[in-house]
Amino acid sequence: MTGLNKILLSEKDIPEEWYNIQADMPKPCLPALHPGTGKPIGPEALAPIFPEALINQEVSKEGFIRIPEEVRDVYKLWRPTPLYRAYFFERLLDTPARVYYKYEGVSPSGSHKPNTAVPQAYYNKAEGVKRLTTETGAGQWGSALSFACQHFGLGLEVYMVRVSYDQKPYRKLLMNTWGAEVIASPSDRTESGKRVLARDPDSPGSLGIAISEAVERAAKDDDTKYSLGSVLNHVLMHQTIIGLEAVKQMEIAGEIPDVVIAPFGGGSNFAGIAFPFLRLNLTQGMNIRCIAIEPASCPKLTKGEFRYDFGDTVGLTPLLPMYTLGHNFIPPPIHAGGLRYHGAGVIVSQLYKDNLIEARAVQQLACFEAGVLFAKAEGIIPAPEATHAIAAVIEEAKRAKEEGKPKIILFNLCGHGHFDMSAYDAYFAGKLTNHYLTEEELTANLRELGTPVINL
Amino acid sequence: MTGLNKILLSEKDIPEEWYNIQADMPKPCLPALHPGTGKPIGPEALAPIFPEALINQEVSKEGFIRIPEEVRDVYKLWRPTPLYRAYFFERLLDTPARVYYKYEGVSPSGSHKPNTAVPQAYYNKAEGVKRLTTETGAGQWGSALSFACQHFGLGLEVYMVRVSYDQKPYRKLLMNTWGAEVIASPSDRTESGKRVLARDPDSPGSLGIAISEAVERAAKDDDTKYSLGSVLNHVLMHQTIIGLEAVKQMEIAGEIPDVVIAPFGGGSNFAGIAFPFLRLNLTQGMNIRCIAIEPASCPKLTKGEFRYDFGDTVGLTPLLPMYTLGHNFIPPPIHAGGLRYHGAGVIVSQLYKDNLIEARAVQQLACFEAGVLFAKAEGIIPAPEATHAIAAVIEEAKRAKEEGKPKIILFNLCGHGHFDMSAYDAYFAGKLTNHYLTEEELTANLRELGTPVINL
Repeated sequence: MTGLNKILLSEKDIPEEWYNIQADMPKPCLPALHPGTGKPIGPEALAPIFPEALINQEVSKEGFIRIPEEVRDVYKLWRPTPLYRAYFFERLLDTPARVYYKYEGVSPSGSHKPNTAVPQAYYNKAEGVKRLTTETGAGQWGSALSFACQHFGLGLEVYMVRVSYDQKPYRKLLMNTWGAEVIASPSDRTESGKRVLARDPDSPGSLGIAISEAVERAAKDDDTKYSLGSVLNHVLMHQTIIGLEAVKQMEIAGEIPDVVIAPFGGGSNFAGIAFPFLRLNLTQGMNIRCIAIEPASCPKLTKGEFRYDFGDTVGLTPLLPMYTLGHNFIPPPIHAGGLRYHGAGVIVSQLYKDNLIEARAVQQLACFEAGVLFAKAEGIIPAPEATHAIAAVIEEAKRAKEEGKPKIILFNLCGHGHFDMSAYDAYFAGKLTNHYLTEEELTANLRELGTPVINL
Repeated sequence: MTGLNKILLSEKDIPEEWYNIQADMPKPCLPALHPGTGKPIGPEALAPIFPEALINQEVSKEGFIRIPEEVRDVYKLWRPTPLYRAYFFERLLDTPARVYYKYEGVSPSGSHKPNTAVPQAYYNKAEGVKRLTTETGAGQWGSALSFACQHFGLGLEVYMVRVSYDQKPYRKLLMNTWGAEVIASPSDRTESGKRVLARDPDSPGSLGIAISEAVERAAKDDDTKYSLGSVLNHVLMHQTIIGLEAVKQMEIAGEIPDVVIAPFGGGSNFAGIAFPFLRLNLTQGMNIRCIAIEPASCPKLTKGEFRYDFGDTVGLTPLLPMYTLGHNFIPPPIHAGGLRYHGAGVIVSQLYKDNLIEARAVQQLACFEAGVLFAKAEGIIPAPEATHAIAAVIEEAKRAKEEGKPKIILFNLCGHGHFDMSAYDAYFAGKLTNHYLTEEELTANLRELGTPVINL
């Protein structure tokens, strides 16, 4: 073996700006609509729950936005993250493809989520906010925001879906260690929660209910705001720090990726690594394929429709133009909790509609099989979300072998699976299955929406 | 904030040789004795259970021993590890001390243990061994060796103490993911295990029994050898890669540590970071204090005796000259399982006897308190073993503040606590206690030994 396994950057190379792809999109995003009037709404509608700085970022058309020094100081705890050449994985796959991965699992909470949690906490603190609220499912996002709020001295209430709260005590404990209060949702702390509990005192909860509780708390309290871990434009933009570093690192490796692959939930994981490469396509005429990998059990891009829909399950948000399976769609309980979201963020949806990015759906068993193979070769136990990218990489690497082409593949290894070992346990015990959704299951929620399908 | 948080080295800077402190010790280690004859034994006595290359390293007086290229290739998956300046922790402690830590938690299994697991697997493979056996308590060592054996295509049987096997299913799963067979000990696979089970079918097991089982299996089978994760000279030497890197990194930082601190179990953690700095004391007249931090519940250095004793609980090994509490000493069940060993490795014992290193004992509650403080400041959740170093760092930092001195402190953050969250759970729930051993408890096992106390 001759080359370097890892391409490292110095802290001085941490990007000084995030990349805002809204500046380079050939077609801009459609506006959000007021659910009552059906008319476009402006950013001011978001003021009760988000700080001004983040609302400005949400609608900005500036190509690059400066990262505050206080945020870069915290990024230095784990950034720049390493970019790996997966020599041992290539050898195991016996492929001529050259496989690279950007490893975000080195962050304090073990995933890419702190990349946006830290600036969100910072901007809220800077505008005098005292407390944030958020929801969390499996806990990746809740733990990232707990770490960030701890750092800036903000209080945090995390509404954690009851079933995860009971199943994943260590994720809760991680949040507690960083000073957050974790409340099983539905709770009796909010009207939304009380209403659910009145109907079903033993409700296992859902991400939708948890969002309602967190938003309700933030809307009612002047010094409290709400924070979201994916989907929104500013969240995706904060994550571009992944790809900005990766562009530099691939340059150092002397390679241009043929294909960039990332798991897809609401969009922050995929956007994080892909947008800075997409920028090279949009502004420099390059031709790098960017592929979003979603679970076959929640295939919003490959099987959903591009239409207006709510961002949350209970319908508190404006109507957003997104690829969606319908906001009431409840995905089968796969172990990649971070990918169980009914829709795709607005920017990603527009890019997909415009054929600037690709999407592919993969089944759960292929993902875990890929995850175990990867762990054997590279030593890192991937998070269930991350295994989706790996399953697609294996497909691409096999194709490269069939075609005898030395394809260059880059993927986002968005986090480790240290707090998800129960999922591997279930896999090894043969308890996991694939999910084949019928046409009826895929369209039932869409038919009930009553909102316009978008034909551009 | 101005300086760098992390000092990184390139893979090209991975040391090409381990450091063997036996070359520079002012007084050599005393020989091991045959328990029957009381006479010194040679290295050939170890041949049934260890490969020749490791036996040669065990007794070598060469100052530096070359790291095989195949081992460096695997090290590249996570080495060089980062050296951090703990700015946020310093701020929290409000200390003039400058605190640095070497972070070994970035390895595949999350601790420093793969530093020796990888070469041990390599040398065994090179000599035609087909299978290794080992014991594990909490699982740090077993998972490191599983990863290493997986890489080199060796089979592995891990005898895991029954109580840990039942309490820590995810550690077991991690080993399974890397292809190891994990057997709850005592088992019916060995005569040692059967004997214990005959007396007590519900035995919770102990590290001593698990060692007996693993050694018995290795001794009986020609193509099977045994592997140990600490205590022995070659193990400590492999770990010096930590300190060799840290010496370079501190040079880059432009600092010479006043004090180097590490947790102490059998010695590999402490030796790993301290020996290369101790070398500067021994060969260049420097004066860097190296402090081993042991749990107050297992205080072999601060409360034990320097005398001949067995390395394992049931008395299968030669008699070794070590600081010990007696091989039958059973430490209270603290959560830092990796530090619950009755004795100190031979080299460390000699250095301590010769006043070349220091030792200090810390209580469990202070350790967890320190661990939580550290996690709040730096984001990393430390393994319970690592919190021992942190507790001592806090003491040193407070002293620096009292004295108004900008002391330079370096410590080994030997691993993360992602698989030890149950320990933090117990701590937060108020279920952990300190342990104050009586004089009788400390000396009872020593009185029964019947082996000579060593007076040099």
